[in-house]
Amino acid sequence: MIDAYVRGVVAEEQMSALAMAILLRGMDRAEISRWTAAMIASGERMDFSSLRHPTVDKHSTGGVGDKITLPLAPLVAVFDVAVPQLSGRGLGHTGGTLDKLEAIPGWQAAMTNEAMMAQLDDVGAVICQAGSGLAPADRRLYALRDVTGTVEAIPLIASSIMSKKIAEGTAALVLDVKVGSGAFMKDAAQARELARTMVALGHDAGVDTRALLTDMSTPLGLTAGNAIEVAESVEVLAGGGPADVVDLTIALAREMLDAAGRPDADPAAALADGRAMDVWKRMIRAQGGDPDAAMPVAKESEQVLAPADGVLVGLDALAVGVAAWRLGAGRARREDVVQAGAGVVMHAKPGAVVRAGEPLMTLLTDTPERFVRAREALADAVVIAPEGSRPASADGVVLERITAHD
Amino acid sequence: MIDAYVRGVVAEEQMSALAMAILLRGMDRAEISRWTAAMIASGERMDFSSLRHPTVDKHSTGGVGDKITLPLAPLVAVFDVAVPQLSGRGLGHTGGTLDKLEAIPGWQAAMTNEAMMAQLDDVGAVICQAGSGLAPADRRLYALRDVTGTVEAIPLIASSIMSKKIAEGTAALVLDVKVGSGAFMKDAAQARELARTMVALGHDAGVDTRALLTDMSTPLGLTAGNAIEVAESVEVLAGGGPADVVDLTIALAREMLDAAGRPDADPAAALADGRAMDVWKRMIRAQGGDPDAAMPVAKESEQVLAPADGVLVGLDALAVGVAAWRLGAGRARREDVVQAGAGVVMHAKPGAVVRAGEPLMTLLTDTPERFVRAREALADAVVIAPEGSRPASADGVVLERITAHD
Repeated sequence: MIDAYVRGVVAEEQMSALAMAILLRGMDRAEISRWTAAMIASGERMDFSSLRHPTVDKHSTGGVGDKITLPLAPLVAVFDVAVPQLSGRGLGHTGGTLDKLEAIPGWQAAMTNEAMMAQLDDVGAVICQAGSGLAPADRRLYALRDVTGTVEAIPLIASSIMSKKIAEGTAALVLDVKVGSGAFMKDAAQARELARTMVALGHDAGVDTRALLTDMSTPLGLTAGNAIEVAESVEVLAGGGPADVVDLTIALAREMLDAAGRPDADPAAALADGRAMDVWKRMIRAQGGDPDAAMPVAKESEQVLAPADGVLVGLDALAVGVAAWRLGAGRARREDVVQAGAGVVMHAKPGAVVRAGEPLMTLLTDTPERFVRAREALADAVVIAPEGSRPASADGVVLERITAHD
Repeated sequence: MIDAYVRGVVAEEQMSALAMAILLRGMDRAEISRWTAAMIASGERMDFSSLRHPTVDKHSTGGVGDKITLPLAPLVAVFDVAVPQLSGRGLGHTGGTLDKLEAIPGWQAAMTNEAMMAQLDDVGAVICQAGSGLAPADRRLYALRDVTGTVEAIPLIASSIMSKKIAEGTAALVLDVKVGSGAFMKDAAQARELARTMVALGHDAGVDTRALLTDMSTPLGLTAGNAIEVAESVEVLAGGGPADVVDLTIALAREMLDAAGRPDADPAAALADGRAMDVWKRMIRAQGGDPDAAMPVAKESEQVLAPADGVLVGLDALAVGVAAWRLGAGRARREDVVQAGAGVVMHAKPGAVVRAGEPLMTLLTDTPERFVRAREALADAVVIAPEGSRPASADGVVLERITAHD
């Protein structure tokens, strides 16, 4: 079916009907494996077996303030593991890793396969644009799903992600499957099914795959945007940064290092002693960027003030993501240009005590007419409860761990 | 959705996905009613209220040897009821009423609305080609369902049939829903659901609608073709003909006459005394045909012989239908031309005692290279059991009656 679709023998109408049937009826494990294999066969496969070091990759299903790839890739590379992060740009309220890195003066997302292999051998980490040759059937199928109400089919989400990751040729893969308002999967049961499906697909294809279910009910860290997320990532690489970003970075690093055969590595130490920062700077420089240059700053800012005294018990991830998007940090159509400096800086996280009139967030944009729509998105984002209350969300960002044996 | 589809705002891909969702999830009664109303609203509506007599229409879901419309329309018109039979051509193994009537020299299927109204007032019965203005959304949707595996969705079958019948403006409608190998619905449960859905749709639209579930496990009558079915219909109109064709014609006539307010009419008498034949001849002449002309005869014939002594307990409708189609009586594509003389004449019906070597069927075609494929279709069509056996199929052609109160 996939082959005939790519060759134009199966029409868009026919694939649309099949996509809806898959959404409503599901696919069994063997069907998803065959479907994924066919997606992979529609394009080229990469091969990292000539590298000096084992490869391990991470994929996140996307969330608000999710800058984890930035500190994570250099951190894991510290331990003689090659980390090829073929990434994408953002669409909608979740940012794209490439959009964030492009805020760094000079940094280039596009690379040839040869340059990528050389950088993996030399620096150990690369974050670059995925070539169009990997699973090209996925792009056509995704565009079709987008207009036919079939994006949410778990077999199609899983095969879309895993076909590209398997074609990329990584030996091991750690999945960060987000759960909550800011994530694609709103509840844990759905997220767990997606995670299990992807872990099984990886296993069937010979890729050591495991998944963490992580909280996306509130944004990760204190920033949602591009340049501001790079700055927060650099804080983490300098041994600081918000606890949730540090915790998730280290949890994912441990999984990746374990999958790569480095179970005794100590990623926390590599953040504390500057080794991860060293790899970061070499990685940015290798792709033309200046890691020490001043980052772009938004021309305009406005503050969102706390409406009452109390404990901040809710700060909704989706609302903050949409606000950052509307401020110019994200794009509505693929051809839109993002603003490097735009976004939302948060001054408090759930659990914090706040006073009425104190700034809760700073909104940043080059185009001040965007403030109104951003504030609209935030109208119900903040929940303040009487002092002594506790946030409803889970303790800790990692909710569950899923492996091929579950 | 239908309106946007017809205007090109909803794409074929989107309608395909919706059709599959309807196939897999169904629609409730209110949804099917709204969907049907939208199909009707996509085109023109006819109005028979200016006629002298009440109107009543019949629709058959199609079967092998189903020539019932031919004797039925003039028979009902005998009793001062107007019978507008807007019909189609055949596609696949079930013949089309217009294909059969076009075997009559001079007869024309196409008519203006004005000519149709005049003939209804004057003769009382008309069998003609449905104009393209009735529910035009249905034609596009049917073509899409045909290539997306969604033809079998009962809500879509029911709304397709009923939108055209309601748009046609008949006051009452009798549905002949076929069940068995030669029918679209292979089992009684499906056929019953389709019948109930259509009866409810008619009721909701103010059309007095009722349905008969009738047997299509074996062909109706002793002929499947075009000219040979006209000849068999004329036998019925002359007071003879095979019992199953006569029985179904009278059962449907009684339903139609009851729905038209003529519960005391005696259709059997009108077949016996020649009144139905008189209306038939006037109806054929009014559309340019010569009811007394010699009918076309196929150039070539071959016989199928009984393979054993015993009781004929099975004569499969689908096999006979496919054989007649392959002999040239039907078409595979809309643009194909049918052979007026082609088809299958049966010499025994289930229940008959047969002797090995006796002719069971005569195959007719102008193109003798077709005999081989027709015989292939008939390979498993005939079941002969030891003397004293009885056919498995039901006693009598009418299986069930379904009204709006069921």
